[in-house]
Formats: sequence, structure tokens, C-alpha cells
Amino acid sequence: MSKPKILVQIDSDEHASLFDAVVGIDSGVDHLIPYASVQVAQVQNLVHGAMFTRGPADLRNTAIFVGGSNVATGERLLEAVSSCFFGPMRVSVMLDANGANTTAAAAVLAAARHLDLAATEALVLAATGPVGQRAARLLAGCGARVRVASRSLPKAEAVCQRLSEQVDNAQVTPCASDSPESTAAALQDVQLVIAAGAAGIELLSPDMLRDASALRVAIDLNAVPPLGIGGADVMDTAKERNGVLHYGAIGVGGTKMKIHKAAVRKLFTANDLVLDAEEVFQVGRELEQA
Amino acid sequence: MSKPKILVQIDSDEHASLFDAVVGIDSGVDHLIPYASVQVAQVQNLVHGAMFTRGPADLRNTAIFVGGSNVATGERLLEAVSSCFFGPMRVSVMLDANGANTTAAAAVLAAARHLDLAATEALVLAATGPVGQRAARLLAGCGARVRVASRSLPKAEAVCQRLSEQVDNAQVTPCASDSPESTAAALQDVQLVIAAGAAGIELLSPDMLRDASALRVAIDLNAVPPLGIGGADVMDTAKERNGVLHYGAIGVGGTKMKIHKAAVRKLFTANDLVLDAEEVFQVGRELEQA
Amino acid sequence: MSKPKILVQIDSDEHASLFDAVVGIDSGVDHLIPYASVQVAQVQNLVHGAMFTRGPADLRNTAIFVGGSNVATGERLLEAVSSCFFGPMRVSVMLDANGANTTAAAAVLAAARHLDLAATEALVLAATGPVGQRAARLLAGCGARVRVASRSLPKAEAVCQRLSEQVDNAQVTPCASDSPESTAAALQDVQLVIAAGAAGIELLSPDMLRDASALRVAIDLNAVPPLGIGGADVMDTAKERNGVLHYGAIGVGGTKMKIHKAAVRKLFTANDLVLDAEEVFQVGRELEQA
Repeated sequence: MSKPKILVQIDSDEHASLFDAVVGIDSGVDHLIPYASVQVAQVQNLVHGAMFTRGPADLRNTAIFVGGSNVATGERLLEAVSSCFFGPMRVSVMLDANGANTTAAAAVLAAARHLDLAATEALVLAATGPVGQRAARLLAGCGARVRVASRSLPKAEAVCQRLSEQVDNAQVTPCASDSPESTAAALQDVQLVIAAGAAGIELLSPDMLRDASALRVAIDLNAVPPLGIGGADVMDTAKERNGVLHYGAIGVGGTKMKIHKAAVRKLFTANDLVLDAEEVFQVGRELEQA
Repeated sequence: MSKPKILVQIDSDEHASLFDAVVGIDSGVDHLIPYASVQVAQVQNLVHGAMFTRGPADLRNTAIFVGGSNVATGERLLEAVSSCFFGPMRVSVMLDANGANTTAAAAVLAAARHLDLAATEALVLAATGPVGQRAARLLAGCGARVRVASRSLPKAEAVCQRLSEQVDNAQVTPCASDSPESTAAALQDVQLVIAAGAAGIELLSPDMLRDASALRVAIDLNAVPPLGIGGADVMDTAKERNGVLHYGAIGVGGTKMKIHKAAVRKLFTANDLVLDAEEVFQVGRELEQA
Repeated sequence: MSKPKILVQIDSDEHASLFDAVVGIDSGVDHLIPYASVQVAQVQNLVHGAMFTRGPADLRNTAIFVGGSNVATGERLLEAVSSCFFGPMRVSVMLDANGANTTAAAAVLAAARHLDLAATEALVLAATGPVGQRAARLLAGCGARVRVASRSLPKAEAVCQRLSEQVDNAQVTPCASDSPESTAAALQDVQLVIAAGAAGIELLSPDMLRDASALRVAIDLNAVPPLGIGGADVMDTAKERNGVLHYGAIGVGGTKMKIHKAAVRKLFTANDLVLDAEEVFQVGRELEQA
């Protein structure tokens, strides 16, 4: 008889995410064990509890989900988790702090329904944030030419530098979007734009969209009005406006949720998976093909 | 296949109530997710995790239990929970901080076994506390004429004012019980007395009881000696003494526990229930009639 | 239908042990309810939640596991838990803070496979620590003559005094192991040595072992190199070296894990068990005989 499936939440927030807990349960987990306010120094003891309690053949039934609202902290926690493993003594682990991986994956998958990403010129606005960086990374990994936009050009350059290290043959260009004029310029000749900015800030105006004649797909990941793309709607799901297909945060949310569940289920298929941006995206790819 | 039943404890204490956890499990919940030390400002994120993770048809399988030893804090948490809902995006929620709703409901139901509440003159001692206020409210809602007693007459008057706003046609009268004489006077001509005072304080002496010739039912909700009603016993369950039927805290406790379980089960029958004092009492009513 | 099995973790650490959580689940528990950072003053409320939520016939399906890395704190928590019980109102409880009881039991059981403990002269090194004390206590209870060694002779004497009070007819002798010479002297004529020292401190050198001509079994409970017994290996399981059978921490760990699970299962066979060192050892005895 196989062991019960245990999902351990390692979460940096004061309360471990209820969102992640419910999705974990709905992914078929038997027992959820949440840990909140987890600091990097406390990870080893938790991971040892996961690694040293079941035989190698049963370790696939224990998995770790790294969450919390701070993505940078989540990345450090994931690193701390991974560094505890040795040889066959390991469990599968997934990072989705603040939903960044599943959201970025869902956005890029939405674009891939309408565009050949390997032949696409793409613009990611607010690309230095955690979701934006991941979206740019996934796009670059698919062969797109990616304009990495930020209000701060040095920050955009730093992200491009990192993407070049992370992705083979990444075609990335930093660009400043610190004024309506510079943003409009960045939008010229792109087929895809993904707006990954903070809640309540309009990054693109309806006027800019109208002038972007090559644009085919516009994805806005902000759920709180005013939205990142003026004239769009959070519910948009391939909604056409002036020849541009729009996706809103909730329109992308259904795909995000399916990816989240499928990724948790995948954790329990082996004991050595590490699901970060690319792996979560791959889970989404398989869902689209199924 | 229906989704697993998830009960989320939102509890203001440092450790979420184990009492509520066990009763939740024994009510048939599949997964219990406890949150402790919850502050009002943290509620929204938790409730969004409950609301946005399942489709409308499945939201009845997620429910929230607001607990903790502080009833006033529990009331604020319930308000914060309810304010997150909109349209069909909601889950059912129950308030039973410090067991106040189930205890008050059980006490009034015990009285209703022996008295026609609509024709009863009732006295609630320590009626300004959370259980006392709820007992007075339920009695007034049943049509009883309720004497609302407190050591502080202004506090009793404030509670009466609030009850008049909460209950249609409430017949409530404030009275001071700041001395043996004033308490004895308040007891004259009542058929029912409920003592809802703090642990270890005798509110009624055996002498007072003997002189209360109209009294038929005396309910004491204090479980720690000395009890609120002198000469009574925590185990009393319709125990007759000098023509008065007595109920003690444990005698009422069996009914309280049944109401608690039935109320949790009821949460999972719809996604839009808010179970506060009246609704919990109604659950108890249905149990007595079944 | 019997109630779901609920295991309540009462743990003094900031995060309740994941190790104990997984082992609890793998012992067949239906619901695990972890409490972290538990202080003695908070125990009563938790235990009342365990005691007062199910009828006497069902209380065997609720049990408490006292854990945490601090064994002395665990002992105080166990005492606080036990002091809440009265009459039939109780649940079974097990202490295994820092794995001390299951580790000591597994070590003594390993020795008992090869030696008649009632006719054994034994040495426990670092016997004033929580595991060492428990190993000495179990050995004395089996009739062994036990040399209780510590770098501090007064501490060793204090432990011997306590063992004499805890174990009938305990044959215990304090001895100082504050130098290679004194340790070598303590090792003369013993058939069994158990090293229960802190991580990374070598208590016995290979030279000392070679000179200990009566020695038959050497058990080292330290898992982090350098080990407590020079020349040994954490994986040793009755591994012979120069006529001495060696056990390392991981070699003992398999037995420890079986005892841990069997002890948790035993909790749910009655509602009045208190499993501390002797009772956990007895669980191990029964496993060996089965």
C-alpha cells in the first residue's frame, strides 16, 4: 500500500497561504502540513523531517511547496531546501511564491495559443518584478525576441544580463519605459505585450494600443483597477478589440489554476523534481497538448 | 465527484482552539486548516484564498469557523470575513468565539423544553457579557419579556438599547443587580433565570431562590465552583430542587455540543450561510424537533 | 462507526516537528493537529480541548504527542498534560522530545540482541544528557550494572541518585570521563558501551577500544562526524570490528523509527496510556518478540 501523499507548505508569510492550501488539497493531497513565517535558517530541520522519515521508494509521496507573498524570499527558501538533499535522499519541491511561476506560465501559454513565439517580437512591461522576469525568461526560452522594459534602464539591463546567463541564446533587449513616449516607442513592431506591473498603475493607454499596428496579443496581469492596459478588462479571454486579442488577470487565472494543480500532482510522480519557472511552464505546455 | 470539505479556523488566540478543531473533524470535515493569532487586517487574504480557489458550484465545500476566546474580536473577524464576499463569490461562515453562540443557544433551548418562552418573564444575570447578551437576544426573539441585569445599570441600559435595535418588538428591561437586595428584587415574578457570569462568582444564593416563588427553571452556565447559582451542580440536567428545574454548565453542554456539530455540518449545505446567534439557535431548534 | 484518529502535536519549538508529523501520519493517524511554541501555561486549554470533545468511549481516538528539540521542556509539558486528567476524562500521551525516548529504547534493544543485559556491565558515556540518562535508566531497569559517566563527577552522581529513585534495585555507579585515562579506566571490564554525546565530539578513540578486552557491543548515537566512537560508522548495524559489534546512529535509526510508529499506534488502543522511556522501550520489546 502506498504512503499517504503529504504536501508540506514552506511559506514565509505570517499565515501560510490558504490559496495554496486549498489548491494543494484539490490536487489530491492526503495531508497538508503548513509552516508559516519560515526563515532560511529553519529550512534544514524541516527538510530533514521530510527526507528522513520514509524509505527511498516512498519519498515520492512527500513533497514541498514553497510559497509566500515575497518571491525573492521564496527563491532563497527553494535554494535552502535544495541544498539539503543528497543522493537519493530528496523529495520533490515546487516554487510558486505569490503565484509568480504559475502566473507567468499561464500568460506565456495564452500568448502561444495565437503566436509562434519563436518568431515573435515581445515586450514585457514592468519586467524587473518577479512575474515580469519570469515571463521574459519563458518567452526568451521559447525563442522570442524580448524587450525587457522598466522605468529604470539600469534595472532592465541587469535583468537582461541575468536572462542571458539563465537562457541559452537569449535574445533580450533592455528598454526604458519611463514616459508615455518611451513606452510607445518600445511598443513599436511588437506582436505581444505582457503588462506585469503593480496593482493600480496604467502602463499602456488606449491611445498607445491604437498606434501599435503590429500588436496581436495584449496580456494584463493586474487584477485591481485601474488595470495595466487601459480599456482592457480583468475577465478578458482572447477578447478582440481593434484587432488585438486581450487577456485579463482573471482570463489568465483559469489556466494558472490548472497549471498549479497539475504541477502539484506532478510533484508526487517522483522524488527528485524541482519545479521552478521552466518546469512549471512545461507542465502547462503538456496540459495544452493533452 | 464533490470536493473535499475544508473547514478553515480563523482564530484570534495564539493557538487555534483544539476544541473547535476536534468538533470540526467530528462533524465530518475532510481537512481542517487552522489559522491562529488572526488579526482583522489579515482576514482578506485568507478569505480570498477560500473564495477564489474553487468554482461557484464547489464553494459550499469550503467553510470558515471564526473562534478564539475573545467574543468581541470574533465579532470583528466575522464582519471582516463577510465584507470580502460579493455576488456568488462567498463561502459559509460561523461565529462561535468562546462557544458563546452554541452555549447561549443551548441554554435557551433547555428553557424552552419547560416553558412557553413567548409567555415567560425571564431574568438574565451578567447579561452584558457575550453569552448573557446572546441569551437575552434569543429570549427576546422568542417573545419573552427579558430583564437584562448587570452590576452596572448604564451597561444594562446600553444592552437593552442594542437588543431593541437587533430584535423586532423586543420586550427588554434593564435592571441593576449590584446587591443581594436588588438581585432578589429582579428575581421576583420571573419563571426563568439564566446566570451567565464569570467563573467563580455566586450570583444567586439558595435563600434568594427559595424566595422566588414564580421561578420554574434556573440555568447556570458557569462550570467552575463556586457556581453562579448557589446549591446547584454543574451536572444538573432538569434536576428539580424545591420545585425549580436546574441546569448546570455540563448539563447544558451535551446540547451545546450537538448544536455545534450540526451547525458545522450545516455550513457545508450552501455557500452563503452566516451562522451567528439566531442562526445557531435555529439549528438547535431543528435538532430538538427532529 | 469509530471516530477519526486525531494526533495532537504539542511541541515547544517554533515549528512543530515535521519528522514527528510524517511518522504520525505513517502510523495511521487520520488527522494531525500541530501546535508549536507551546508553553506549559498553555497546555491546559489544549488538553481540555482534547478531553471534553468526545465521549469516554471515543477518547481513545484522540492522543497527544509531546515533542520539540528540548527534552527538559518536553518533560515539563508532559507533566502539565498529565495533570489535567481526572477519572476517565483523559487521553493517551507520548513523550518523544528530540527523539530521546525512541532513540534510547532502540539503543538498548540493539544491545539486548547480543547480550544478557541482566548479566552485563555497561558504560554510558555522556550519561547526563537526555538520551544518555534514558539509556542508563533502561539498562538499569533490565538489571544491568551501569557505569554512569560524565566529564563532571558531581553531575554523574546526581544522575545516579535520580536513577536509584526511579528504578528498583538500580545498580549504578558514577564515574568521571574527563580525560583519555579516566575514560579508558571506565571502559575496563564492560561488555557494552553506549556513547550518547553531543554531535562532533569523539568520546572513545580506536586505541581505547582495542584495549577494552571485555567489550562486545559498542553503540554510538551521534550521526554527525567526527563520531563519538572513533573508527565507527553511522551506518554500522552489528558490524564487527576486532571482535566488537558496532552500531551507528543510522544503524539504530531503523529500529528507532519502528518503535516510534508502533508507539503512536499503541496510543490509539486506550485512552489512559502515558508512554515515557520505559513504556516506549516496552513497545520496542514487543516488536522484537513479534
